[in-house]
Amino acid sequence: MTSPDGENMYFGGDYNPEQWPEDVWLEDVRLMREAKVNLATVGVFSWGRLEPAEGMHDFGWLDRVMDLLHDNDIQVNLATPTASPPPWFGLAHPDAMPVRADGTRLTHGSRDTYCVNVPAYRAASRRIATALAERYGAHPATVMWHVHNEYGTTCYCDHCAAAFRDWLRDRHKSLDALNDAWSTAFWSQHYSAWEQIMPPRVTQYRSNPAHLLDYRRFCSDALLAHYREQRDILRAHGPQPVTTNYVMAGWTPLDHWKWSAEVDLVGIDHYTDQPGDDGLAQVALASDLARSWARGKPWLLMEQGVAAMYTPERTLALEPGEHVRRSLDYVARGAAGVLHFQWRASQGGAEQWCQGMVPHAGPDSRVFREITELGRTLSSLAPAEPEAAEVAILWDDEAAWALQNPALPTAGLDFRASVEQAHRVLWQRGIATDFVHPSHDISRYRAVLMPSLYLISDEAVANLTAYVEGGGTLVVSYFSGIADPDTRVRLGGYPGALRDLLGVRVEELHPLTAPVTLSDGTIGTFWSETVHLTGATATATYPGGGPAITRHQAGAGTAWYISTRLDASGLGDVLAQAGV
Amino acid sequence: MTSPDGENMYFGGDYNPEQWPEDVWLEDVRLMREAKVNLATVGVFSWGRLEPAEGMHDFGWLDRVMDLLHDNDIQVNLATPTASPPPWFGLAHPDAMPVRADGTRLTHGSRDTYCVNVPAYRAASRRIATALAERYGAHPATVMWHVHNEYGTTCYCDHCAAAFRDWLRDRHKSLDALNDAWSTAFWSQHYSAWEQIMPPRVTQYRSNPAHLLDYRRFCSDALLAHYREQRDILRAHGPQPVTTNYVMAGWTPLDHWKWSAEVDLVGIDHYTDQPGDDGLAQVALASDLARSWARGKPWLLMEQGVAAMYTPERTLALEPGEHVRRSLDYVARGAAGVLHFQWRASQGGAEQWCQGMVPHAGPDSRVFREITELGRTLSSLAPAEPEAAEVAILWDDEAAWALQNPALPTAGLDFRASVEQAHRVLWQRGIATDFVHPSHDISRYRAVLMPSLYLISDEAVANLTAYVEGGGTLVVSYFSGIADPDTRVRLGGYPGALRDLLGVRVEELHPLTAPVTLSDGTIGTFWSETVHLTGATATATYPGGGPAITRHQAGAGTAWYISTRLDASGLGDVLAQAGV
Amino acid sequence: MTSPDGENMYFGGDYNPEQWPEDVWLEDVRLMREAKVNLATVGVFSWGRLEPAEGMHDFGWLDRVMDLLHDNDIQVNLATPTASPPPWFGLAHPDAMPVRADGTRLTHGSRDTYCVNVPAYRAASRRIATALAERYGAHPATVMWHVHNEYGTTCYCDHCAAAFRDWLRDRHKSLDALNDAWSTAFWSQHYSAWEQIMPPRVTQYRSNPAHLLDYRRFCSDALLAHYREQRDILRAHGPQPVTTNYVMAGWTPLDHWKWSAEVDLVGIDHYTDQPGDDGLAQVALASDLARSWARGKPWLLMEQGVAAMYTPERTLALEPGEHVRRSLDYVARGAAGVLHFQWRASQGGAEQWCQGMVPHAGPDSRVFREITELGRTLSSLAPAEPEAAEVAILWDDEAAWALQNPALPTAGLDFRASVEQAHRVLWQRGIATDFVHPSHDISRYRAVLMPSLYLISDEAVANLTAYVEGGGTLVVSYFSGIADPDTRVRLGGYPGALRDLLGVRVEELHPLTAPVTLSDGTIGTFWSETVHLTGATATATYPGGGPAITRHQAGAGTAWYISTRLDASGLGDVLAQAGV
Repeated sequence: MTSPDGENMYFGGDYNPEQWPEDVWLEDVRLMREAKVNLATVGVFSWGRLEPAEGMHDFGWLDRVMDLLHDNDIQVNLATPTASPPPWFGLAHPDAMPVRADGTRLTHGSRDTYCVNVPAYRAASRRIATALAERYGAHPATVMWHVHNEYGTTCYCDHCAAAFRDWLRDRHKSLDALNDAWSTAFWSQHYSAWEQIMPPRVTQYRSNPAHLLDYRRFCSDALLAHYREQRDILRAHGPQPVTTNYVMAGWTPLDHWKWSAEVDLVGIDHYTDQPGDDGLAQVALASDLARSWARGKPWLLMEQGVAAMYTPERTLALEPGEHVRRSLDYVARGAAGVLHFQWRASQGGAEQWCQGMVPHAGPDSRVFREITELGRTLSSLAPAEPEAAEVAILWDDEAAWALQNPALPTAGLDFRASVEQAHRVLWQRGIATDFVHPSHDISRYRAVLMPSLYLISDEAVANLTAYVEGGGTLVVSYFSGIADPDTRVRLGGYPGALRDLLGVRVEELHPLTAPVTLSDGTIGTFWSETVHLTGATATATYPGGGPAITRHQAGAGTAWYISTRLDASGLGDVLAQAGV
Repeated sequence: MTSPDGENMYFGGDYNPEQWPEDVWLEDVRLMREAKVNLATVGVFSWGRLEPAEGMHDFGWLDRVMDLLHDNDIQVNLATPTASPPPWFGLAHPDAMPVRADGTRLTHGSRDTYCVNVPAYRAASRRIATALAERYGAHPATVMWHVHNEYGTTCYCDHCAAAFRDWLRDRHKSLDALNDAWSTAFWSQHYSAWEQIMPPRVTQYRSNPAHLLDYRRFCSDALLAHYREQRDILRAHGPQPVTTNYVMAGWTPLDHWKWSAEVDLVGIDHYTDQPGDDGLAQVALASDLARSWARGKPWLLMEQGVAAMYTPERTLALEPGEHVRRSLDYVARGAAGVLHFQWRASQGGAEQWCQGMVPHAGPDSRVFREITELGRTLSSLAPAEPEAAEVAILWDDEAAWALQNPALPTAGLDFRASVEQAHRVLWQRGIATDFVHPSHDISRYRAVLMPSLYLISDEAVANLTAYVEGGGTLVVSYFSGIADPDTRVRLGGYPGALRDLLGVRVEELHPLTAPVTLSDGTIGTFWSETVHLTGATATATYPGGGPAITRHQAGAGTAWYISTRLDASGLGDVLAQAGV
Repeated sequence: MTSPDGENMYFGGDYNPEQWPEDVWLEDVRLMREAKVNLATVGVFSWGRLEPAEGMHDFGWLDRVMDLLHDNDIQVNLATPTASPPPWFGLAHPDAMPVRADGTRLTHGSRDTYCVNVPAYRAASRRIATALAERYGAHPATVMWHVHNEYGTTCYCDHCAAAFRDWLRDRHKSLDALNDAWSTAFWSQHYSAWEQIMPPRVTQYRSNPAHLLDYRRFCSDALLAHYREQRDILRAHGPQPVTTNYVMAGWTPLDHWKWSAEVDLVGIDHYTDQPGDDGLAQVALASDLARSWARGKPWLLMEQGVAAMYTPERTLALEPGEHVRRSLDYVARGAAGVLHFQWRASQGGAEQWCQGMVPHAGPDSRVFREITELGRTLSSLAPAEPEAAEVAILWDDEAAWALQNPALPTAGLDFRASVEQAHRVLWQRGIATDFVHPSHDISRYRAVLMPSLYLISDEAVANLTAYVEGGGTLVVSYFSGIADPDTRVRLGGYPGALRDLLGVRVEELHPLTAPVTLSDGTIGTFWSETVHLTGATATATYPGGGPAITRHQAGAGTAWYISTRLDASGLGDVLAQAGV
């Protein structure tokens, strides 16, 4: 992938010309040039215009858009429109509409009304992707392919049930293995035939956590199969890089490590919802995640809000200059460019109140002037080479999903929040940080943080052990290393997977109802544990004298354990002690 | 319409004799005479007794009730019972049971289990209305017809889908026009056949706001068609006025201006939920709305609580004397009488804990004594001629619905609440107030208030402009005049429809997270805007110096703009400055 | 029923060996002996292992378990596994899966996915119960049968509809009687054929309270029929007592008086959720209820948490020693023993985070040491003979259900909470307390408390009247005696059923929004009434002078009425005045 002139940043956003009469297009390209926009994401929601009836294509308008953009030196990130099937699709294929866990069949009338496991939808997706690839694969404006949009839907239909069973056969090989992995002896859930296995639909009482977890894995893989199918079609018609845009929400519908191995560049949609430093911390976290997932490939900010933050309650404006500053922060952390949703604010439709680079008020506006300023600034910058990180935080979507099991010792356990806190403490101390999968090579980092990573494989444990014994510093926080990949508790004392490495054995887990003050003055909240030392030294103890924070020399390295929730300052102190 | 003796107030309530043995009826009429009740609403929920099996009628008991009431000089507001189909109806016509947006089919067992768009229900409604009209149209007790009860149900069934499409054909004429009005280019929602259009059933993500708004309009019209069908039958059998009872809730399921053109008098059901002055303000608002909607026709309080307020949490009693005072307030604002739900408190059923004029404790009770006192007071009063209002507030249900779109720049926008605040400020200052539709003739008012009227037609804009230029005073508050009747944003700067009239151009909308103090000491909350003066003068500015409240001389009149939310005192000050 | 050695307490818990490899079983019995476990509840969730395909049984593993336990002097409470049908059952009988009120059909994948009114489920239940009875009815380890588990599911399917109609025919005899009892004249709900009656499925607006109440009664009876069917099979194969385990939750799905007449001993599952004294009060309440329901038969704590409290938010540990103390409290109040859920904490499954007697950490743990201490303590104790109670509190599940009607004069009315408060006040004062049904013989108590018993039969009123007139003391609190068994309000002044006995007539009910101070300094909250004295004397009055608390001499006894909600101290004062 090369940016437009081979060395500058990508700059632009989603461009939906089909919402506007053609005379507006002329103003669009004039304003894009004024703002130094060099990349437009086109066609994300254009299925209805491109294929007005099943199998009938109308590319005339898009031909004109592509040519117009090309004539104005604006390159195109061309989207396949499969995230929003037109109404005719739902009518022709009612079984392709998604079904909720309670059996409710959804209807078209929004976006994302499809199930990726339905053959008719897959065929329709291939057909429109092929048609676009054939027509625009060689168009000089096409510099990138954008498959679909914000993958992340979940469905519980019968097609999903069948696909889930195939996926389970592949993962567990035999029903016996599945029954064992899922602990189906409890509550008489033994499966005696594959056909008995359903998606985790609504049931009378609590669901089986292994069942829930495998369904999360399956959903990510099923979406990925849909992506790969289109990617392969597009690759067959041109040399452009192919990608999609991850939603950077707490919800994590995708296994990002797996996905990132399949995209040519990592693309993220990132909407902050906090002002000031809190927002900058969000920018740093999203950028560090994207760069880490990319593992050396480029990454791109494919959508951000236009000088605005969308909170659940209201849309807040960024301060003057803040949008430029944040955008440059993404770039400093390695983004190949910054794009927005969307170029021109819509007059109608469900997102008419999302901000546009050209707002409702038109180009005579602070917003457009800031966009122009940003475009000019970026046009003078070369891509940044981010500082090499010496510290890493473990990231694993599977562990995050496992911790969303509703029946844990306490509500409020949240992998994402633990990661955010750890990342922020490092960010505030100016420490460049990567994210790594627990099984990846981590030997080059002087320290690795493991924040509430509930689930871990034996392979990852071996990796971490080798790392510490080789001289690394590992800082583990509470409720890590508890479960195996099938979310079964590792027995004999917590954290089953890490007892030897940490030199501790935890006998009991005690969610807290009130804060406790540790021996070193630090405050612990939310959680505590009964920790026995089996080699480690306590660096801070609970009021009763039991170890709260421990340090263990293991080989040439050190493994720390924090058995309670610390605030940022407390965590910072431990990291300082650990030499991080 | 004439009240019983040609000059006095109507007084009474819903009378459900079918709940009681016939010997209780004799006590009922004795007590009604004691309390000077002169109007009983009969039959609202009597379908099951009147038509015990499909097509078989039993009028004997009602004949006796009508004669008994007539013999005791109590006139009857005779209801068609279509708001509560009997169980046999649901069994015979399962497709007539209403369906929720998620596809759940409701069951009989409460009230209001029907869909007005189902032919079988319409036929059953006509049949019972015809039978009642034939039998009682000439009965001397029958002085008024009460069609149905509290219209307001919404359904999403296939019959609704078909009727909605017909309604859309009538409104938009062509699919092209509909696609344009609904901005279907966004999210690939282009409709290529009428059959693709559904009610706004549950879908994956946000719905199209124009779709939602047209469904609100359609539902009001579909209910109105059901009303008109019965009204026409009743009119064909007698000279009595025909009406129905609007629910005065924030929910506004009806387009009250449209409906009020079709009823012979405006009837409202009004349940206050606040004590003291807050309750009196509710009485004034409901009365002023009803009188305004009636546009010169009589209006009647068809239901109120009996000396009680029903809050979501509990039933609260009014203070001694308060029920009489409130009732007289309705009358002072033009009510042709005051009725209650219901005459005698029920022993069982879903509303057994709704207060009765004869409570569970019986007539030896404070409640019945107050009812008697009220009846005697009203019997000595002639209908009031309310003071002519010189100030009007704009009311438009379509604008209220549009502001219930869940994806606006902030949660908490509420047309009804804005209207309530404006009305209360005027009420506290003793200013008589009407409500008017934005397109109605408003020339006779010295001032018109426009509180957060989001959606407005070009015709209404011309009307308001002519009004101001002709010397009127218009006071507009934030987020008014934003959208066209298809809920598309009017471009080029807010408020698109009113920029010229107000002499301002608003560049950005900024929901607030904390209050701001304006230059004149007034406090603004919730909302602010970036206002540019294009002819207006700022009378108060935001901390940064930007205009917050503006005044614009337009022709012989003045147009004010308030770009933030003021409290009652702040709004009162602006109105005082504006000479309201 | 005899405890293991004829005089000691039962001690043990649910034992689910099918979750573990057989080598763990050997450690299990060794540890059980160490902890002096003498009763294991086996097979509660073993259906899938016992009947791996419809009609095919596999008892080999259970034979080995039974023999192993017997060889180690551990007796068995053998369960029928019908609370958790295996997946094959749901696939073979989709119509046996339960249906929610909104029509959602649930899926297997948890537990309790069945409807007791479906013939196929009943047949499957009988088949597995018969097979177990035949095989283990004469096994020397089998000392008790545990039918099903925690009865309490509700379903709204068509099978339920049919069964409900049969039940209604039996209760009401004729449709006329049903229409009268249900007050169907209101809202036109008259039923003209039995087939028109449905379970209380989702409907448009409020449901009929008599309909809701009869469905609660029916559900309890339908579950009981399922229980009795299995009980009779088991009784036919051996002399062991048969029982089941009630869930001691506020939800009360069962009519406990009716059920307790059908079980050979009363078994309860009791999970506290409060520490300290609050938890001890919960123990006392549950024990007193169980002992009272048993009416002279033994009662057994069949499940409790293992040294832990499960709150909705988190699992909290009991203080050291607290588990022993609480367990001994159950025993002091008559428990024939204390059992736990479960023996060994599960590695996987939905309840992997429920504590075990052998926790995840293994036997080298505080938890197992406390269990061992408890086992040793119990092994040295003979069953207790609880102190005979001189005071009783009325308990009636039907009245509790009636008060769950969502349309009462205020939200927050709660029979269970009123009972808890009354019980706790007595408990704090060291007064031994029984619970009694309002129609039971209460002559032996010196005082009876009636806390917000909304619904009461004529027979019960006569019982209470005879009790007072014979010299008893009755203390009635607000909103008691209001409705008849069909939840119709008793007219003429509240509390219709008790006016004569209390010597008061209540004219109005007034939920409070703020506390009031009574004449004696007591604070009343939540509720007040307009009380007229018709023989009683006021012992405390409201600020306006109206009676708040009254005393009435009736025959040789006294009846007190408390017309507001008092706090514990205020209630204690009234009880003291009443000589309780």
